[in-house]
Amino acid sequence: MADQITKRSVNYSQWYNDLVVKADLAEQSPVRGCMVIKPYGYAIWEKMQRILDDKFKATGHQNAYFPLFIPKSFFSREAEHVAGFAKECAVVTHHRLMNDPDGKGVVVDPEAKLEEELVVRPTSETIIWSTYKNWITSWRDLPILCNQWANVVRWEMRTRLFLRTAEFLWQEGHTAHATAEEAQEEKQRMVNVYADFARNSMALPVIVGHKSPNERFAGALDTMTIEAMMQDGKALQAGTSHFLGQNFAKSFDVTYTDKEGKQQYVWATSWGVSTRLMGALIMAHGDDNGLVLPPALAPIQVVMVPIFRKPEEHDAIIARMEEIKKNLEANGHSVKIDDRDTLRPGFKFAEWELKGVPVRLAMGPRDIENGTVEVHRRDTLEKVTMNLDGIEEHIAGLLDDIQKNIYNKALKFRDENVEKCDSWEEFKEKIGTGKFLLCHWDGTAETEQKIKDETKATIRCIPVDSYVCEEEGVDIYSGKPSKQRVVFAISY
Amino acid sequence: MADQITKRSVNYSQWYNDLVVKADLAEQSPVRGCMVIKPYGYAIWEKMQRILDDKFKATGHQNAYFPLFIPKSFFSREAEHVAGFAKECAVVTHHRLMNDPDGKGVVVDPEAKLEEELVVRPTSETIIWSTYKNWITSWRDLPILCNQWANVVRWEMRTRLFLRTAEFLWQEGHTAHATAEEAQEEKQRMVNVYADFARNSMALPVIVGHKSPNERFAGALDTMTIEAMMQDGKALQAGTSHFLGQNFAKSFDVTYTDKEGKQQYVWATSWGVSTRLMGALIMAHGDDNGLVLPPALAPIQVVMVPIFRKPEEHDAIIARMEEIKKNLEANGHSVKIDDRDTLRPGFKFAEWELKGVPVRLAMGPRDIENGTVEVHRRDTLEKVTMNLDGIEEHIAGLLDDIQKNIYNKALKFRDENVEKCDSWEEFKEKIGTGKFLLCHWDGTAETEQKIKDETKATIRCIPVDSYVCEEEGVDIYSGKPSKQRVVFAISY
Repeated sequence: MADQITKRSVNYSQWYNDLVVKADLAEQSPVRGCMVIKPYGYAIWEKMQRILDDKFKATGHQNAYFPLFIPKSFFSREAEHVAGFAKECAVVTHHRLMNDPDGKGVVVDPEAKLEEELVVRPTSETIIWSTYKNWITSWRDLPILCNQWANVVRWEMRTRLFLRTAEFLWQEGHTAHATAEEAQEEKQRMVNVYADFARNSMALPVIVGHKSPNERFAGALDTMTIEAMMQDGKALQAGTSHFLGQNFAKSFDVTYTDKEGKQQYVWATSWGVSTRLMGALIMAHGDDNGLVLPPALAPIQVVMVPIFRKPEEHDAIIARMEEIKKNLEANGHSVKIDDRDTLRPGFKFAEWELKGVPVRLAMGPRDIENGTVEVHRRDTLEKVTMNLDGIEEHIAGLLDDIQKNIYNKALKFRDENVEKCDSWEEFKEKIGTGKFLLCHWDGTAETEQKIKDETKATIRCIPVDSYVCEEEGVDIYSGKPSKQRVVFAISY
Repeated sequence: MADQITKRSVNYSQWYNDLVVKADLAEQSPVRGCMVIKPYGYAIWEKMQRILDDKFKATGHQNAYFPLFIPKSFFSREAEHVAGFAKECAVVTHHRLMNDPDGKGVVVDPEAKLEEELVVRPTSETIIWSTYKNWITSWRDLPILCNQWANVVRWEMRTRLFLRTAEFLWQEGHTAHATAEEAQEEKQRMVNVYADFARNSMALPVIVGHKSPNERFAGALDTMTIEAMMQDGKALQAGTSHFLGQNFAKSFDVTYTDKEGKQQYVWATSWGVSTRLMGALIMAHGDDNGLVLPPALAPIQVVMVPIFRKPEEHDAIIARMEEIKKNLEANGHSVKIDDRDTLRPGFKFAEWELKGVPVRLAMGPRDIENGTVEVHRRDTLEKVTMNLDGIEEHIAGLLDDIQKNIYNKALKFRDENVEKCDSWEEFKEKIGTGKFLLCHWDGTAETEQKIKDETKATIRCIPVDSYVCEEEGVDIYSGKPSKQRVVFAISY
């Protein structure tokens, strides 16, 4: 099983692709750049959705649903926005097929041309703000706190499963506020929700910070981000939260009457995470044997494999396993007994390791006699034989420990690979070797662009809660004065 | 509030539209035929999704996700299928916009024409069976039991919120089996899941049956349906489950090696329900005051409205309400205290009636003194003043009772409007008056079509669990022999 997967040290990128496919997470579809998310991959995404959705609701948000299609004219109302997305749009131009008059099959019916072309949403600010216009009259109508779970399409030329696909799944929050302060608070609240989810559920240490103007969302005045380090030392942007100012309110003429009776433009935020998180999860924690799933997101937390020769041994083991399963499920754990009769235990072990199941229990006739079980943990690959008494409590504790251990391992790795850097020569040497470099920056887009052109590195964020370093210094490239270090890295 | 809604007796169709919009369920979007599902409407849909999803998982299904786009050539591989959907497809032809060389705004970039056009999925049989081809080799790979929650697009010319929209949300199950028997069992299992959901969660009495060949899904050998009667006596198809035979397996060359080593084509089913269920829910139970939601699907089951003059009265009432709320929530009920200070109680009463909240509690200073509360039930509009002792148990029982009562009311209405009919003259008189007519049919598509042409009525189903009447008779139109009565109605 694991020998079907390229080793990370040989080719990290191929390792990732192998893992996604062999662990049954996703695969390429016959449609260019679009993926099929397979049941095991989708089950992880569903766990993510449920946890995030609960957090959104706990912070006062409601779900809604807005159209898939955006009239072309709407799309172009906000200038920066359309510039950011126009080059990668799927465009619907017709609404009917017809039999090919020249032969077999069907062709687009030229009579069925749309009056105005429709863009398949790459993001929904424009269609949502055109709707909010009708929902908002007075300060009493604010805030509006909506989220939607949806598919979006961005016609990327170079795609990779989960990381960059033409169609992907995501959630997009779109909120409307009476004041800039409230909108800023919302932007901050939601990036914190994402950071909390990444850290506690995905076991993913992330750096929270502001994007530099070059890297902002098209149409935003401020973009906050959570940035994670993958095992190759590259950065992955895992979620963003935008303060949109009054840009969309002005483009769609969305105003409200304030308490003093004055007309005011509404303030906006938007925020989103996508199936890209699946890529982050895989790349941050996987090893050469396969996936390593944090228990909080594992569709199966405990798998049990019976080891036997005779049918009566099988029955006794399965009976005991069913009992343990029932108790574990009563504690809220998800458990599977792998009773497939056509596969050897060794094969099953390798398969569940590949699929990243946190805990594996194996039980043979000797265990039944002795009242024991073999407990294997996926993160460290350690196994111990244990007494069955109190096994349920042990497993609850073990799952907690695995969750923490996966996080701490990733955190340690990151800490070892984040460095201060004050010399341009050193920067050029190190930036391609899997490091995040904390450097002084003069704050100009020009310098950032030059550094990107020469090294491919970008400013991942101006950190606000990790590696914050507010101190006087000089820009690593331009030599101009700087007041804070920022995080540079090569990114996905 | 209720006076903003057209009465059912005046104009049932307008009543429906008013209700959808005034109760904040959905609204037309600026995109032709596409709706915005508003938070309150979406919350009901989420409840439906959760219950259905649990049922799908309990019957062994897993969720997955397949691409939004279908290459045009795939779409046309199954002849009946393409004939059924080609005339109402949104077609993507280009993948980029560009600045309009002649002026402002953006236009489609003619250079960015796709080699092959993509159809926005109207249903996913073709893309899924092209994928299943790679998943299935041996009998060990079967069955495959996948479901997806997705948006689909059918370019309808005449649209109505929830009932018929160009884009709608749904789930589509797609299963692959080794034998016809297994696939038939699956088809039956899933129509039963739908019937169970309709009856127990939606409080909607449905008739389960087979569609006549004319009304089958494009590409199916058998379509089973659940048919519901709306308050105008029209039928609404609320869910379907199809036995697809080997049609899609043959079109996409999906075979497996059986236990004897022989290659066999795979057998298929598909089944789905959509946001159309929202329309059924509204039209089956609503009254002239607004929505009537069954407690199982109500986003808010109990609303509490304080009645007071002085601030200290307010505080005492709210404190007591918070206590009751906590207890009700501990019992799993969803509760809202409507403490808005800008609205009068009468306005709030009307608003929550409009929104169909099953139980309303009102409490004033006198109630605080006496330890009482006014309990109002939405379905019957009855109110009683009750002692607060044991109020939690009372409300649990009341919610159960409301759920049952809504169902029984709809069932009684249906039973009163289903009639046997054996005369063509009588049929023509009665079919437009809000009746389901149980008639003999000769089993031919020709007769069915003629009846439809003359009266607009269609065979809703050949019933299998309600109004089953297997007896010799003669076709109401052709006079030819018949062995069973079928259900004729005008439908949505």
